[in-house]
Amino acid sequence: MKIYDFEGFPNPARVRIALKEKGLFDQVEFISVNVPEGEHRKPEFLEKNPSATIPVLELDDGTTISECSAITEYIDSLAGEQELTGESPKERGIIAMMQRRAEAGLLDAVGTYFHHATPGLGEAIETYQCAEWGNHQKERAVSTMRYLDGVLAQQPYLAGDAFSVADITAFAGLSFADFAGVETPDDCKHLAQWRTNVEARPSIAC
Amino acid sequence: MKIYDFEGFPNPARVRIALKEKGLFDQVEFISVNVPEGEHRKPEFLEKNPSATIPVLELDDGTTISECSAITEYIDSLAGEQELTGESPKERGIIAMMQRRAEAGLLDAVGTYFHHATPGLGEAIETYQCAEWGNHQKERAVSTMRYLDGVLAQQPYLAGDAFSVADITAFAGLSFADFAGVETPDDCKHLAQWRTNVEARPSIAC
Repeated sequence: MKIYDFEGFPNPARVRIALKEKGLFDQVEFISVNVPEGEHRKPEFLEKNPSATIPVLELDDGTTISECSAITEYIDSLAGEQELTGESPKERGIIAMMQRRAEAGLLDAVGTYFHHATPGLGEAIETYQCAEWGNHQKERAVSTMRYLDGVLAQQPYLAGDAFSVADITAFAGLSFADFAGVETPDDCKHLAQWRTNVEARPSIAC
Repeated sequence: MKIYDFEGFPNPARVRIALKEKGLFDQVEFISVNVPEGEHRKPEFLEKNPSATIPVLELDDGTTISECSAITEYIDSLAGEQELTGESPKERGIIAMMQRRAEAGLLDAVGTYFHHATPGLGEAIETYQCAEWGNHQKERAVSTMRYLDGVLAQQPYLAGDAFSVADITAFAGLSFADFAGVETPDDCKHLAQWRTNVEARPSIAC
């Protein structure tokens, strides 16, 4: 299988971490799409993903799958147990819920701030900006950090006792927040400790 | 199990349709949360869902699961085959992708238009509005309708040959669009035919 992405960007990082957690990283051919230069908006790429976002997974039969939550769902179903998305209905429901909260409230909120209330990727890429909404989403991101901190005061990972896609999404969200200049409040001690633990995982540290 | 929701609202409709598709509707006790009167922001409800959204699924052990995609994941895993979210990795990936596109591009976009660029649920509920962003999301919703129309020109359902959660989400999105005054373009003939077919399903018609 192939993955079209841009190394170092937050959503590609989610899929790369998931692949390493599953031991599947070496089975993928990565093809770089130069987003800062607008390559994701060219017709060749839009044929693979009309939403013009990376990453995109391309299967050997030519099927293309975009949206990180869908790609990680595919990857986790491919081999072994579904460690990242859960096995039982209850595990799957809780992980999906926490993944969505981390995505909408943190990662996507930081992304909206970055693309709308800062110069983002520059004038040629940021052809429409709504700064007021961007700044509002920055507040949402900080509020979500406090919420996640409260969750992690009760349990080691966002969906309970085990590392899951919810943790991957939140970790990518905090990395993006650093990059975009959205500071994690100093008093979010549980979130900081969790982040240190997650950073030490071989899928991220190595 | 219990579901806290408000009948007739778009996200509750998604879960109710999924329950009927799975033959599980009668196993649920529904508890009404009066969103137009702000009941979803009261402390008792925030304990069940800090995001203050409906629906919320409460299991018999007290576990609460919110976010529609998470609740439908739980419901579909509960009984029989996973008809709504897919069985094989490829099916699961494609359905998750199309579900997310219909959610972000149509249902959530219409919701943002309704809550930000119209009076929405009234002054007492809509305490922050950003009309510019709301109107931009209306354009996104119409653009997504055209995209979905193109998909349905090629296949009977959004994720291929079988009805799935992606269709449920898009159907709820079009119902919400009607309510919010976002018109489906007349030339979206495939989308209109698909909608007629979906409306005839026992989970929706009965």
